[in-house]
Amino acid sequence: MIGRFRVRTDLAMENGEKFEKDQVEIPGVEIKKRYNRAREVWTTLVKIETEQGARLMEKPMGTYVTMEAPNLAVPDEEYHREISQEIARCLKKMLPKDQDCSVLVVGLGNRDITADALGPMVVDNLRITRHIVNEYGVAAMGEDHVIRVSALVPGVMAQTGMETQEILQGVVEETNPDVLVVIDALAARSIRRLNCTIQLTDTGISPGSGVGNYRTGLNQETLKVPVIGIGVPTVVDAATIIHDAVAELLESLEESEMDEFLSELISPSMMSMYVTPKDIDETVKRLSFTISEGLNLAFSSTSQSK
Amino acid sequence: MIGRFRVRTDLAMENGEKFEKDQVEIPGVEIKKRYNRAREVWTTLVKIETEQGARLMEKPMGTYVTMEAPNLAVPDEEYHREISQEIARCLKKMLPKDQDCSVLVVGLGNRDITADALGPMVVDNLRITRHIVNEYGVAAMGEDHVIRVSALVPGVMAQTGMETQEILQGVVEETNPDVLVVIDALAARSIRRLNCTIQLTDTGISPGSGVGNYRTGLNQETLKVPVIGIGVPTVVDAATIIHDAVAELLESLEESEMDEFLSELISPSMMSMYVTPKDIDETVKRLSFTISEGLNLAFSSTSQSK
Amino acid sequence: MIGRFRVRTDLAMENGEKFEKDQVEIPGVEIKKRYNRAREVWTTLVKIETEQGARLMEKPMGTYVTMEAPNLAVPDEEYHREISQEIARCLKKMLPKDQDCSVLVVGLGNRDITADALGPMVVDNLRITRHIVNEYGVAAMGEDHVIRVSALVPGVMAQTGMETQEILQGVVEETNPDVLVVIDALAARSIRRLNCTIQLTDTGISPGSGVGNYRTGLNQETLKVPVIGIGVPTVVDAATIIHDAVAELLESLEESEMDEFLSELISPSMMSMYVTPKDIDETVKRLSFTISEGLNLAFSSTSQSK
Amino acid sequence: MIGRFRVRTDLAMENGEKFEKDQVEIPGVEIKKRYNRAREVWTTLVKIETEQGARLMEKPMGTYVTMEAPNLAVPDEEYHREISQEIARCLKKMLPKDQDCSVLVVGLGNRDITADALGPMVVDNLRITRHIVNEYGVAAMGEDHVIRVSALVPGVMAQTGMETQEILQGVVEETNPDVLVVIDALAARSIRRLNCTIQLTDTGISPGSGVGNYRTGLNQETLKVPVIGIGVPTVVDAATIIHDAVAELLESLEESEMDEFLSELISPSMMSMYVTPKDIDETVKRLSFTISEGLNLAFSSTSQSK
Repeated sequence: MIGRFRVRTDLAMENGEKFEKDQVEIPGVEIKKRYNRAREVWTTLVKIETEQGARLMEKPMGTYVTMEAPNLAVPDEEYHREISQEIARCLKKMLPKDQDCSVLVVGLGNRDITADALGPMVVDNLRITRHIVNEYGVAAMGEDHVIRVSALVPGVMAQTGMETQEILQGVVEETNPDVLVVIDALAARSIRRLNCTIQLTDTGISPGSGVGNYRTGLNQETLKVPVIGIGVPTVVDAATIIHDAVAELLESLEESEMDEFLSELISPSMMSMYVTPKDIDETVKRLSFTISEGLNLAFSSTSQSK
Repeated sequence: MIGRFRVRTDLAMENGEKFEKDQVEIPGVEIKKRYNRAREVWTTLVKIETEQGARLMEKPMGTYVTMEAPNLAVPDEEYHREISQEIARCLKKMLPKDQDCSVLVVGLGNRDITADALGPMVVDNLRITRHIVNEYGVAAMGEDHVIRVSALVPGVMAQTGMETQEILQGVVEETNPDVLVVIDALAARSIRRLNCTIQLTDTGISPGSGVGNYRTGLNQETLKVPVIGIGVPTVVDAATIIHDAVAELLESLEESEMDEFLSELISPSMMSMYVTPKDIDETVKRLSFTISEGLNLAFSSTSQSK
Repeated sequence: MIGRFRVRTDLAMENGEKFEKDQVEIPGVEIKKRYNRAREVWTTLVKIETEQGARLMEKPMGTYVTMEAPNLAVPDEEYHREISQEIARCLKKMLPKDQDCSVLVVGLGNRDITADALGPMVVDNLRITRHIVNEYGVAAMGEDHVIRVSALVPGVMAQTGMETQEILQGVVEETNPDVLVVIDALAARSIRRLNCTIQLTDTGISPGSGVGNYRTGLNQETLKVPVIGIGVPTVVDAATIIHDAVAELLESLEESEMDEFLSELISPSMMSMYVTPKDIDETVKRLSFTISEGLNLAFSSTSQSK
Repeated sequence: MIGRFRVRTDLAMENGEKFEKDQVEIPGVEIKKRYNRAREVWTTLVKIETEQGARLMEKPMGTYVTMEAPNLAVPDEEYHREISQEIARCLKKMLPKDQDCSVLVVGLGNRDITADALGPMVVDNLRITRHIVNEYGVAAMGEDHVIRVSALVPGVMAQTGMETQEILQGVVEETNPDVLVVIDALAARSIRRLNCTIQLTDTGISPGSGVGNYRTGLNQETLKVPVIGIGVPTVVDAATIIHDAVAELLESLEESEMDEFLSELISPSMMSMYVTPKDIDETVKRLSFTISEGLNLAFSSTSQSK
């Protein structure tokens, strides 16, 4: 948050980086990095364990796993199966241990806005099983244990006239899933992160995050079941890249001067603009496939062993 | 229902026609026709008033309004505004008299199957107001009275793993609409009716109807609020047109012979086939626009006067 | 052709079957069948070698390869790679032997009509190389020999106001490909063949064939370069299935009586109707992928050896 | 052009504005502005009449009409019919006087990239008449004179492997239109112009312009028929908005310093980024409709009188 121009990021890792520069340890926050050479993925685990840590990180207490895979931005015949496997590995750690649990996957965002369509498109590729198990029993799936998967694309408030939280509350009460997995397109702080970073968190979705901006959080507190959030940054606010370009230039300025200066520089029309790569349509399609495959792997009992 | 091969229709009017041929009056059923010359629309009002009538018509008790507008199948620059106005007129008679009521519009069907996408596409064009009125009050709309409109595209069971009824029950309990308006693509009995007939009914949606086939009814009994169903036939089952072609030929046969004969004629692979016009993609797009405009007109208070 | 109601098929194999029933050999026509057990594909090779054979088969002289793969109608994680390989094998036999030749792939049909969108969708998935080789040379592709692939989706006459032949003639003259590969959605005679049969022929596309019906042929005679046609039946005319249903019934009738009888049975409105499976949207998407992968394999020099 | 960072604009008017600031008259260039109060449209006419003028304006000699209609960015029930009428008026001035001429409309750009899909989408809504007049004569249209309209969506080089110019040359030679009207999405210099500015020019399309960047010009010289270009800016390069933000700040710097400074500021990854409004998908859909209606009006003989 810099003056009136809040530089917005939905990635916990990016908030951590502010401290990293100064090589300061953040009290109540544990950060671990590891590199998977075979899959070419950096995984950063951020655990915010105290209220103080939450304040410093500007994120709720909980676990945040961020996978960085530069390859993701590049097309691949196999739709990056190696990333899907890494997503499955991380997701399974957050899912209930019960091998017969039921999961409701929610694809947030607006299907008609390319950069915001990630959530709905992930749901399109999911293997849905709840209705089959409910009708024919676990045996029908040819397995001993089956995670029952249901899914919903609730739409955004401009399309529904309802808060996403209202819709989910109703559906959760009626169908009683053990856990929610909520997918959303995020705004990133850095162009470098676009479309090649995936964040999983057990804190759900925060108010004000996402390309479409939610007004109320989707989390255990509001929905009465655990909520796992999966987000991928697909846009950077136009104001953010100008801020960054100018920031270095103006390191000497006081913060209040900076604020004033930027408010002149960034016109109101800029506020509804965002920056995307030229191939965003194709990119979102590929990404949604990689993620849904990750979910399918995590939910299939054959991969349960690992 | 003819032997094993139930000839399926979702239009009450078509069930009425069976009796018409024989010029028999149907006890407990009132049928009225009128022609609007200016709008070139035939309107048939079917009122099923007794249990006996319901049995004879194979439809629940209630009111069914069917609009036949052959023009609908033909493209028109104004998207058939005259039909939208007729829909609005009929719909307003079924809506609660309260000018501040709230309506939840539900677009049934599968967005990814052209012939079944009518419901979702109608919702795409609706003017949604509930969230605005809830946030800023009726005054924000510049009107004295505002019907609050919300909308949902729940998806079909293969996509969600949930019964449509489960989803709607949850959302209805959470958001408390006064009435539901449920839009669905139907299967017709006659090719002549495809894409130019619109049925409105205060009995909701029956189990087994619709292109996608619902297992449980969506009506006041199951959802605890009045449910208005709006349906347009967009397909005819392939088996139906064969049945009809052959039926005349075989009028002399006993019903059991007929059944046996048809079971040889109609192969199992035929069962998942349906008949549509070549231009179904374009037709569904146009139809959805005409209907959503009808809804928009019905919900706007300026037209409330008429 | 039965009286006025021509029962239309674009598959040479289906015309051959009429004779098969009677176990008659067709003069000037050679028919060979083989079954690939591993790939579960039946391949029928029809060679029409004389004018008489062409008359009897109602198809131009040339080679017709039909692949029947019932599995194709069923979703598959690998998008039926085994069928793609079989397509590549058959196609390579028809392509020029020159390993540096250039191919123009043409996706016929109307992108906005699901059942007719196969051609355009195949082109969407192709690996296009002509512009890269022209700009940077063969070496840029890391190969000794490269088939230069270009592609065009010309649209249908209602969209362009031009005959497809006019457009292709101009583009062929300007860009000089060595061979054309033309993809089209076909009308089949039997529901059993829908979406699981692929026909390759060195005779191009005949007038009157395809879902959209072409008025002039696309072949070596009209376009001055060899034209390979690849077709998949995605629809059956509604009139055809009625004809078939009734035909057995009426075997005793004279042909002229049959004609009269059918003309009463099949209403004019039936003429623009066709029969498709419910999941046509998804099916066409899958099929287009399988075929484009077949083309990509056939055009890649690494697979040239086999 | 500022050092290595060419600030790109496809709008002649924007190049004119550089001079405007300094209130300098540009030799060989005539600029006229007028405001249509009823339609709320500013029209700027730029005539580049000499080679010197062309050099100063960095645009070929010819006529450029730019319509600015801030309303365009706002949804409107009538799809901005008043702008369509203004487009028709300007276009008719550039069309041949022959009321029986034939026009080939070309929709440039990539249908699969939202911001670049304007051209293809305009063509989707056109009334195509050439094939009808060729088949049934002018009388079939119920008019004395008919402009024969044909259309083509050639695709971009990555999709076709061919230069757009090659494809058009072939089709022009084969079908002999009297004039081409070429529609393209442009890159603008200023966010203020996005999606509310339309440029018509009799100089066709310049190399390097458009969202997709053409390598060869499409104009009378290359295609042997007059080429009218219609463009709408739908994106701004991300580098441009940073340049602009910083430029004022650095007015004191030498141009070479500026260049160096910017090359540090603007990372290579920025180069494939662009800035669009959040609602670009919906906006392009609306715009394409307004423009195609403008073309339909200009080509219909009933409006020929005015």
